[in-house]
Amino acid sequence: MQLLASYLAGSWSSGSGSRTQLVNPATEEALAEVSNGGHDLAGAFAHAREVGGRELAQMSFAQRGALLASLAKAIHGAREDLIALAVANGGNTRSDAKFDIDGGAVTLSHYAELGTKLGAASSLADGEPIQVGRTARMGGQHVWARRRGVAVHINAFNFPAWGTCEKLACAILAGMPVISKPATATALVAHRLAQLFEPLLPKGVLQMLIGPAGSMLDNVAAGDVIAFTGGSSTARSLRTHAKIIEHGVRLNIEADSLNAAILGPDIELSSEAGQLFLVDVVRDMTQKTGQKCTAIRRVLVPEARFGEVCDAMKERLSSLVVGDPSREEVRMGPVATAAQRDDVRAGIARLADVTDSVYGGTGDVTPVGVPGGKGFFVGPVVRSTKSPMDCAPLNSHEVFGPVSTVAPYSGDAAFAAAFIARSEGCLVSSAYSDDRDWVQSFVTAAAPWAGRLYLGSSKMASQSPGPGTVLPSLLHGGPGRAGGGEELGGERGMHLYMQRCALEGDASVLKSLLG
Amino acid sequence: MQLLASYLAGSWSSGSGSRTQLVNPATEEALAEVSNGGHDLAGAFAHAREVGGRELAQMSFAQRGALLASLAKAIHGAREDLIALAVANGGNTRSDAKFDIDGGAVTLSHYAELGTKLGAASSLADGEPIQVGRTARMGGQHVWARRRGVAVHINAFNFPAWGTCEKLACAILAGMPVISKPATATALVAHRLAQLFEPLLPKGVLQMLIGPAGSMLDNVAAGDVIAFTGGSSTARSLRTHAKIIEHGVRLNIEADSLNAAILGPDIELSSEAGQLFLVDVVRDMTQKTGQKCTAIRRVLVPEARFGEVCDAMKERLSSLVVGDPSREEVRMGPVATAAQRDDVRAGIARLADVTDSVYGGTGDVTPVGVPGGKGFFVGPVVRSTKSPMDCAPLNSHEVFGPVSTVAPYSGDAAFAAAFIARSEGCLVSSAYSDDRDWVQSFVTAAAPWAGRLYLGSSKMASQSPGPGTVLPSLLHGGPGRAGGGEELGGERGMHLYMQRCALEGDASVLKSLLG
Repeated sequence: MQLLASYLAGSWSSGSGSRTQLVNPATEEALAEVSNGGHDLAGAFAHAREVGGRELAQMSFAQRGALLASLAKAIHGAREDLIALAVANGGNTRSDAKFDIDGGAVTLSHYAELGTKLGAASSLADGEPIQVGRTARMGGQHVWARRRGVAVHINAFNFPAWGTCEKLACAILAGMPVISKPATATALVAHRLAQLFEPLLPKGVLQMLIGPAGSMLDNVAAGDVIAFTGGSSTARSLRTHAKIIEHGVRLNIEADSLNAAILGPDIELSSEAGQLFLVDVVRDMTQKTGQKCTAIRRVLVPEARFGEVCDAMKERLSSLVVGDPSREEVRMGPVATAAQRDDVRAGIARLADVTDSVYGGTGDVTPVGVPGGKGFFVGPVVRSTKSPMDCAPLNSHEVFGPVSTVAPYSGDAAFAAAFIARSEGCLVSSAYSDDRDWVQSFVTAAAPWAGRLYLGSSKMASQSPGPGTVLPSLLHGGPGRAGGGEELGGERGMHLYMQRCALEGDASVLKSLLG
Repeated sequence: MQLLASYLAGSWSSGSGSRTQLVNPATEEALAEVSNGGHDLAGAFAHAREVGGRELAQMSFAQRGALLASLAKAIHGAREDLIALAVANGGNTRSDAKFDIDGGAVTLSHYAELGTKLGAASSLADGEPIQVGRTARMGGQHVWARRRGVAVHINAFNFPAWGTCEKLACAILAGMPVISKPATATALVAHRLAQLFEPLLPKGVLQMLIGPAGSMLDNVAAGDVIAFTGGSSTARSLRTHAKIIEHGVRLNIEADSLNAAILGPDIELSSEAGQLFLVDVVRDMTQKTGQKCTAIRRVLVPEARFGEVCDAMKERLSSLVVGDPSREEVRMGPVATAAQRDDVRAGIARLADVTDSVYGGTGDVTPVGVPGGKGFFVGPVVRSTKSPMDCAPLNSHEVFGPVSTVAPYSGDAAFAAAFIARSEGCLVSSAYSDDRDWVQSFVTAAAPWAGRLYLGSSKMASQSPGPGTVLPSLLHGGPGRAGGGEELGGERGMHLYMQRCALEGDASVLKSLLG
């Protein structure tokens, strides 16, 4: 069986000792193996610091952007190959696989263009010059400076391409060398990316550890940055990690998120905005089998439309074919691992104790094209509650699968915003309304609780990417439970990898420093 | 003896149980007492959330700015009173006391003016509108939204006025109610501020706990923000605090900082820039008895000027009168507490093991006007080393007193920047040079390791505030060991108390939302 090597310190490292198998989550067929350890991680960090950092220091933003453009091109060239790996190893339908892979390429291209725009500069001004003395001679100027150190990326299993690319695009454009660690279970796609990217990048700019992290983080030092996407229990262990605290390593976390969708009181379900709402809610349940950090978990609809919404969701879901995603008729595959299936089922059970079934009961399903009893399948599940604010499992446990809970409300914007807030911070939530006063009230109260608010309306329905799509130009991250991190958002995403520094001195000197 | 009450939930709370005495650190005379507990802290948090948050929600930036202006005016009106308290309780000379108190008032006035400038708006745009769809209709706009929750401020003993004011100015202007906790030992000034401010602010906007924090932080919840200034051991306990992690409370830390000053190879000591360097270095040792988080601890000078610099420092320090700061001839008082004195002496002992004495030995001093054996005095100490990069105590232990270490170097800008980096992150460092190429090399390499770089030169020498002065318009905070936080810097300082949110939707809706 193929052993997936890691790319560390300029060469491919097979590791040693025990191994973990990567499987097809639809059939449980073994696809490849990874070593659980045996890599020279201290050497990898030294290589990034000494070789990768030096290479990037010599490049302008435009030159780094050109590297990212070459990576995007490499993805396009190997797209079918990558899709096949995602279908086999990720439980992805072809559409799911494209969402992940094209998302990665689009993000690389976005940052490639940003690099071109930033051009020959090597530092970024933050705001305008400031007078800080009695006269204009004594000035101040904030700048963003490239951090020295290593960007350590710990990615989630659900987006092996997109997650890997979005993090490395920001880090490399900012000028930091990357050590990327994809989730082991779905590492085939990320491993293929490492193979594609390796010949295109200067030495030390991108390394990839395939397999468990082990003691990787014991190698962090001052100036390093860790960007993590994953569950809250791992996030907690990172926050309290002795080496991270000792060296003041910057830590960006994207963790659990109980995203909500709100149907405004003015929207007829049959209208364009009403149909957009329905499409978004059902897409987020089923795309990637609900395994998106941005997926809608909680749905609030006006009392008068509650039955209508439930009926429409049932109707749409009833035609959904679940099974082996390599089959053309299948629209939803399994979740990624046995552990995820068990987590999702436990989450459904928690919800089932305090909610009613609208569709799918507790997720039992007979998948199409799969040997009996095989695969990590959960069917789509819609639950409902009349007490959305008091439903503790709904507001405090992320069920990372094809599960959504619908609840009625009065249509009050303040209540809708309070419902967003109830989960203590999310990556994104959405509201669908053409009533500007309602939207204004909602946004004012909900904005502090979300990294992004998606405002569905009849005017944008025809070209909306939906709330579940992370865009490189808009911030990705959220407060509180969602981790408090910030990624993407154009230049904002580079700031994680830079230090903001206030320069203070003679104004003409400051001006000359910025070039 | 006076018992200092806390101002909590709209009234003055004396607390109960055991008490701690506040003393005059020059004479050890008891000045006042505080209760070690017995306050209704849960009630204080509820009051902030329910009453203070509602009051601020109804106010524009301009209205909040007007509140801050009234606080600045109150400080001016009670200036002599506050100075007397700082001299008695803080070991401050009159000049030290003015530095703290006027610094607080200036910062309040700066944010009052910023409030006027921001005017009637209630949210802040972050950047320009972005097109995120096929056409201009589908847009994005980042905004800063007022966070719901409580701003908890934990301040250091050295700046009871400035520290209190700088934190509350940013929080209140951003729209968050504050619970402020000054350090107990020097709380007389902060307590007086609370008395002055109380009648000027709407209920719940500012509360102050005088005395130990106790279980205060067990009351934090989602949406809250904690801003801490103090030592690294307390910082570590905050980072791993169960409630802070559980609720994803945002935490801003300003901790230890081993700030450096570098004399460029082109600067004659007798020149204007050379004299600025000397004044800054000596001022930072002696002002506030070296108890400034921004004080210069490490000094690098070209080999050829090493002896000259040491001689000049000796000469300036030899005329310094140390003693009871209430006496007019005294230029430096004691450190704030017995524990601080012991810490500083331990730090000097660590340095003495591996450095040579230039001035003051290990800090023994006979203070003027103080009863024999009384007071927490340490004399000014200059040490030197020929191996600045390898001197572990110099680069890893902050000695928070009138202590500085001088070392020679070749004049190389890259070495100077590496020396800045050696302490793993600082609040501010300074370099004195009129050679723009040297400055460019230095800044490029040093900027990622400092929150602020102060660039001394002949052109700005006549109006420079020195690196040790924190300015409201420039960022205060630093990477790594310095805590990784960001305060002040004009609008930047408000962002800690706001959530950045990406709004996505119909472009005309987004435009109308911003008003």
